[in-house]
Amino acid sequence: MGQLSQSKIGRYEFMAEPFHCDFTCRLFMAHLGNHLLNAADFHSAHRGFGIPTLQHANKTWVLSRLAIEMTEMPRQYEAFVVETWIESVMRYFTNRNFRITDTATGRTLGYARSVWALIDTASRQPLDILNTPECGISSYIEPSPDCPIDRLSRVKIGDRAQLAGEIEVRYSDLDINGHVNSIKYLEHVLDLFEPATYKNRRISRIDIAYVAESRYGDRLAMYGEQAGREHLVRVVKNGDTEVCRCKIRFE
Amino acid sequence: MGQLSQSKIGRYEFMAEPFHCDFTCRLFMAHLGNHLLNAADFHSAHRGFGIPTLQHANKTWVLSRLAIEMTEMPRQYEAFVVETWIESVMRYFTNRNFRITDTATGRTLGYARSVWALIDTASRQPLDILNTPECGISSYIEPSPDCPIDRLSRVKIGDRAQLAGEIEVRYSDLDINGHVNSIKYLEHVLDLFEPATYKNRRISRIDIAYVAESRYGDRLAMYGEQAGREHLVRVVKNGDTEVCRCKIRFE
Repeated sequence: MGQLSQSKIGRYEFMAEPFHCDFTCRLFMAHLGNHLLNAADFHSAHRGFGIPTLQHANKTWVLSRLAIEMTEMPRQYEAFVVETWIESVMRYFTNRNFRITDTATGRTLGYARSVWALIDTASRQPLDILNTPECGISSYIEPSPDCPIDRLSRVKIGDRAQLAGEIEVRYSDLDINGHVNSIKYLEHVLDLFEPATYKNRRISRIDIAYVAESRYGDRLAMYGEQAGREHLVRVVKNGDTEVCRCKIRFE
Repeated sequence: MGQLSQSKIGRYEFMAEPFHCDFTCRLFMAHLGNHLLNAADFHSAHRGFGIPTLQHANKTWVLSRLAIEMTEMPRQYEAFVVETWIESVMRYFTNRNFRITDTATGRTLGYARSVWALIDTASRQPLDILNTPECGISSYIEPSPDCPIDRLSRVKIGDRAQLAGEIEVRYSDLDINGHVNSIKYLEHVLDLFEPATYKNRRISRIDIAYVAESRYGDRLAMYGEQAGREHLVRVVKNGDTEVCRCKIRFE
């Protein structure tokens, strides 16, 4: 990872690779989500509080909520920049924001917000971030850049949601910890919609709240409900345990 | 894409991103395949015979076969280089090779071979590459670098293959043309194996031969057969049409 960076805002350039674009020739939302998590990972690693460092102390960051709001998605071959910074640190959560801009023109394509918890990898219990000085995150708080999108939603879903799809967790869903990759839930939820939806409309915002982890072989059932322009999806594993909730707004 | 490149060998650097690694903390084979296709895409685009240029003439490259042979997979965060060049051009096919090296040490991690056809996007029929001078590929033939792995296999599968899995094509499987992304077949085939297989063994070589395209809503059935260290998988759509055949060697 080389020398530690002093700057509070990290800046990472990516490209909308041809095989990461959908049939509208724009970047898949799930691949954008993946780039945001990469930016978060690089930003924390370059500042000494990344997952590879914390692992040695049996600690890790866990993504609790993510919201992405885009006015435009990068087109095939377009380079874009993800800037990320820590907005605030509380006892059990930290808020990390993102801004996505087009490299060529500098115009803002969208913003994202995320909430992370610090956990003990053995007990899987949350740790008090303010009293874990070795993670050093508090010196990197940068509240000033605007992140002019709504705060993260808890994603409330009623009891009327209907079964919309089911999948079994496979090898390619798993991350380095053997849990389902946070972004794979989003990919599976977005696969509930038909191509016609993506042809005629675009996703303006997604919110996802993570509740529990799932593993190889778990059966994930997705229950959906529509509320105006918003689609709500609850993901449940093995019949009864809520895993995550997702809200998708199309325009 | 900027100025055209004169050099016959293209050289592209990638990184084994944390969310592209499996639970052994090594790059997923499917993500490596994706990087190879990106390298092929950049190499041809920078030399004037890429898909974006050919599209204007209603022509495109179609991947017909791919083989990847690795002695080691890049580890999480490791940078690696993909070199690619055109080994030969025949009437209906062109051979493109790849070498994958570790950036830090320069050691070779593996090689890959691929065969591509040039087709007319309207008729979907193959075109005579040697008589399509505007594609200009023939000036870039570079037979000299060694590619010391076996030639591409046609992947012969007998009739005893058993149904091993079924999936329905979803939105995230589709590429910019609305067909299933070549690499997604590989991902679905590799998902037939349990995590224990990946924990105890590693893929030393994969061969994949593409026969037909599939689209949204197609039902893909995967039929598997084991022959020694090799697993053979035939992917069939909608009950009767062969889509691709894959051979995987574990070590």
